Amino acid sequence: MYLNTARLATTSTQPFVERLAALSAQRGRLCVGIDPHAATLTSWGLDDTLAGCESFARGLIAALGEQVAVFKPQSAFFEAHGSAGVALLGRVLRDIAAAGAISILDVKRGDIGTTMQAYARAYLADGELSADAVTLNPYLGFGTLTPALELAKKNGRGLFVLTRTSNPEGASVQQARNLDGSSVAQSIANEAIRANDAAGTALVGLVIGATPCEHTVELTGFNGWVLAPGIGAQGATITGLRAMFGQTCNQVLPSASREVAAVGSDPMALRERAAQLSW
Amino acid sequence: MYLNTARLATTSTQPFVERLAALSAQRGRLCVGIDPHAATLTSWGLDDTLAGCESFARGLIAALGEQVAVFKPQSAFFEAHGSAGVALLGRVLRDIAAAGAISILDVKRGDIGTTMQAYARAYLADGELSADAVTLNPYLGFGTLTPALELAKKNGRGLFVLTRTSNPEGASVQQARNLDGSSVAQSIANEAIRANDAAGTALVGLVIGATPCEHTVELTGFNGWVLAPGIGAQGATITGLRAMFGQTCNQVLPSASREVAAVGSDPMALRERAAQLSW
Repeated sequence: MYLNTARLATTSTQPFVERLAALSAQRGRLCVGIDPHAATLTSWGLDDTLAGCESFARGLIAALGEQVAVFKPQSAFFEAHGSAGVALLGRVLRDIAAAGAISILDVKRGDIGTTMQAYARAYLADGELSADAVTLNPYLGFGTLTPALELAKKNGRGLFVLTRTSNPEGASVQQARNLDGSSVAQSIANEAIRANDAAGTALVGLVIGATPCEHTVELTGFNGWVLAPGIGAQGATITGLRAMFGQTCNQVLPSASREVAAVGSDPMALRERAAQLSW
Repeated sequence: MYLNTARLATTSTQPFVERLAALSAQRGRLCVGIDPHAATLTSWGLDDTLAGCESFARGLIAALGEQVAVFKPQSAFFEAHGSAGVALLGRVLRDIAAAGAISILDVKRGDIGTTMQAYARAYLADGELSADAVTLNPYLGFGTLTPALELAKKNGRGLFVLTRTSNPEGASVQQARNLDGSSVAQSIANEAIRANDAAGTALVGLVIGATPCEHTVELTGFNGWVLAPGIGAQGATITGLRAMFGQTCNQVLPSASREVAAVGSDPMALRERAAQLSW
């Protein structure tokens, strides 16, 4: 029921940024979040159990896997079911790959040294939880993410570093100022620009909330992808992306979770909803 | 071989801070990190495999579980082995509890809304990965951690929020300044003080690196615990804690990982090493 073996000409030996460019040219840039939380499961007639999560996550991919370029499973909802939930996350990642789509695993990991290496090994190397890209958290400093950058480059994977989120609490950290007057969010973007220049490829992407916000991030010179969560439930709209991101808007992957899943489990309704949000 | 059923009079129905106060009064405040990385496994004559991780982690607890108050398993090294590694992490957490010790699960999670709720449910509620406390990451704003604070209070668990780490890259985020001139690190500490006042209990702890650092955090009025990683491998010493933390030093849990484990698998040698680091 779930397995979908259709594959595009893109192969996993291509670097992430090239695969994403090729696939989004065909399918558009909408990223569908896979967030199996209680309210969404209820709207699908499912219980908030591991079996409910599995029916939801794999059903969503079965409906949209050949239409949508990118899926973003949210690790927290799988971890909440313990090791069996993590095993399910592995099956979800394999379903995404089997459908010829790209996975951005939303784990927001961040640590130092050998610990960061271990996180990179968990998600950016071949294995049960192998994803095409992951989200990372830079609170310990952008430089601590280097082991993940190195493994992503070696294995043709991608990274999205939390930069500026749209939630009101975020400004207390992300809008604090460095000695040069730039915000923390801007300094993360600047470090990503430098890292991509040094790598010779747009290895590092940024996470910038899609909800309109007074705090802007200047992206001139940034050649990577921008993951922009918040379409729908968090108040952002697809039509607002152009105003918000300007010339960078063609590098933006808007991400919608509840906004898609809330139509329920009917595959045709899901495909129609995703088509309405195409970008 | 691994199971140790000795238990102290402290019970899991007591709040975390009370259990930790009672147990550390008996056993001291040293926290032993459980970081099964390749170099440490080699020094124990073990391979960098799931079986090697299990022998190391459970052997460390078998040797020290009745001597040391607190263990800090590092989730990354378990996640690197996929869902089987996460299942092992669950067994490690149960061994710690069975030995009458306290677990601080180092996961550094941070997210918003229902996602943060899911992380709290994963680690701060009864279940396979239930820990006495977890580490959290405040890049999305201290306020986003509220679902974890609420569940920790309800279930008698604890939290340690990343505040100021000792690695040189950390300053680019943690030493940026808010409008009132305080650093991000200081503002996290201030929010923890307010949260503990509001909760009427020292629910929120802080993570502050033990390595001497020019960037200090003023802790006057903070009544919670401070987790201070970096003893040994990262250059900090037990004898340096008094100079570094002053009057707060009795609230400090210094954490050592490699510094303990590097003596090898002999239980007597491990006990002697932990005793040398007692605090």
